[in-house]
Amino acid sequence: MSELRYSLVSGEWVVVSTERAKRPKDFLRTREKKVLPEYREDCPFCPGNESKTPGEIYRLGDESSWKVRSVTNLFGALSMNTEHGRKLDGIFLSMGGFGTAEVLIEHPLHNMIIQLMKNEEVEDIIRMYKQRYIAMTRIEGVEAIIIFKNHGSMAGTSLEHPHSQMIATPIVPPQVRSRMEKAVHYFDMTGHCVFCKTLEEELKAKKRVIFETDKFVAFLPFAGASPFTIWLFPRRHTAYFAHINDDEIKDLAINLKTVLQKLYYGLDNPDYNLTIRSIPVKERGTEYFHWYISIIPRLTQPAGFELGSGMFINTSLPEEAAEFLRQVKI
Amino acid sequence: MSELRYSLVSGEWVVVSTERAKRPKDFLRTREKKVLPEYREDCPFCPGNESKTPGEIYRLGDESSWKVRSVTNLFGALSMNTEHGRKLDGIFLSMGGFGTAEVLIEHPLHNMIIQLMKNEEVEDIIRMYKQRYIAMTRIEGVEAIIIFKNHGSMAGTSLEHPHSQMIATPIVPPQVRSRMEKAVHYFDMTGHCVFCKTLEEELKAKKRVIFETDKFVAFLPFAGASPFTIWLFPRRHTAYFAHINDDEIKDLAINLKTVLQKLYYGLDNPDYNLTIRSIPVKERGTEYFHWYISIIPRLTQPAGFELGSGMFINTSLPEEAAEFLRQVKI
Repeated sequence: MSELRYSLVSGEWVVVSTERAKRPKDFLRTREKKVLPEYREDCPFCPGNESKTPGEIYRLGDESSWKVRSVTNLFGALSMNTEHGRKLDGIFLSMGGFGTAEVLIEHPLHNMIIQLMKNEEVEDIIRMYKQRYIAMTRIEGVEAIIIFKNHGSMAGTSLEHPHSQMIATPIVPPQVRSRMEKAVHYFDMTGHCVFCKTLEEELKAKKRVIFETDKFVAFLPFAGASPFTIWLFPRRHTAYFAHINDDEIKDLAINLKTVLQKLYYGLDNPDYNLTIRSIPVKERGTEYFHWYISIIPRLTQPAGFELGSGMFINTSLPEEAAEFLRQVKI
Repeated sequence: MSELRYSLVSGEWVVVSTERAKRPKDFLRTREKKVLPEYREDCPFCPGNESKTPGEIYRLGDESSWKVRSVTNLFGALSMNTEHGRKLDGIFLSMGGFGTAEVLIEHPLHNMIIQLMKNEEVEDIIRMYKQRYIAMTRIEGVEAIIIFKNHGSMAGTSLEHPHSQMIATPIVPPQVRSRMEKAVHYFDMTGHCVFCKTLEEELKAKKRVIFETDKFVAFLPFAGASPFTIWLFPRRHTAYFAHINDDEIKDLAINLKTVLQKLYYGLDNPDYNLTIRSIPVKERGTEYFHWYISIIPRLTQPAGFELGSGMFINTSLPEEAAEFLRQVKI
């Protein structure tokens, strides 16, 4: 037996297994412990190898003792050295791959993950996100900026040294556009921000909330599309990630670190993607959107049904997974 | 350098790597040859083990020498034993997991894949799809039917014995709805079916077409979202898969088998998903939609950028991949 649940944010129905749902512990695949060294001679992101990442864009800290570095992604999908006008050839519409792609090296140590960092070090990563975000908005032709992190091979990364990525796109991506439309529709119907309303109701229901700080709330959304999908919402209503202030950065560092620790200890360091969802650059003043963070552990593989319908099957009950994460001792 | 390409069918921009694209041969990961037996005692789909799949729904052939069997998916996400009314609790909208989920066992032999079958055997699978499709449309409350096949673990299957699946849903899935909207918009703007127009232009451009038969055309779409994504379009304009006639079934069997052979020999049996995209049940008479088959080899892993934006990065140039597949000797 199962249940379909509707996400007010994505406008999509998700199939959530209830009776046959896997128990949270079933997702714990104890893996071979891979102990990483603090430094690897062949790692382009380790200190001493800075020449392997030409095009340092920004740095927190000194050249010889940096804390976080942002560098051009040499294999980036988009680059500034191209036109961004549309080109129509018959029915075939294209444009140059204009944009930027940066890699943010999160820490000098090869094996230092957010879960183990000092709070101030996590703050520095978020500060770097903000700094680079604002810088990218100043590029003529940039419409949207995606901040994301791939942890582990199931999440699409091959480099061990902890890093995040940022890509600025010359168009508003379809998922961003579609969520904006859903939010506008909800706002027009009710006069409320759908995200503020969701947060209010999740706090009232309590059962899917996993961790609260002064300024952020982490919860498993009612209609989460995959097992252990976590949303991290700022309590303050603001559409635009770069409007985050320093108090919020300090608070988010604690919240994010705690949530990632719960995944790390509860599910034995699962592969995951993290992404920051923000309004497109030119609509930053809007009142109907609300930025937030999605953390998506890669515990299952979307298959033909998902690809053919766009509907997801979540084989874990969000309420059970939330209870499990609340209990994880860190 | 790269290019953004717009899909008229999905309404989405895809980033296609051009200069830094991988060559077709880079996707060829020669794997350990796993020789499967014709029969496995512990396989629930092998002849003699029919009691392990209670709930045979339909069968081509005799009980003791069946050709294709359809059985209830014991682990199906949806089932008929539930309500399908909506339930609203505060802002949280849900409904029972109403629907059906069937498994189609494609052949009695454990190791017999479409690529190696006789044409008549492939026809039987397609006939079974059609028979089950029509039967599912007769269930009150069914809105859409998804036919799909998962081949290999990257494509989300764990059972070796070749099989397809069908799921009937109580709602129109979001991706189906969104493609219908795009097609209506195109029809309203131009008076043409966007699929017929796409087919016409792909045939004119030639460079992405990989195989043609009398009644079907296989090509790599201009804005394919991932490497080697193949579309198989019927030439005859019809929205509804179940309107396929027997001449088309015979023709499709040859086309589908050939295309899958090209993947099998060209890329060493890659994991893939196949899905049949058709109009929802109650709109079968519409003139603006066109059913088709998508074949999606699972050669790359979507990561944080894709999850955070809904935009895909295709690291292979469709024109190059098509040329490669055309050359594959079968």
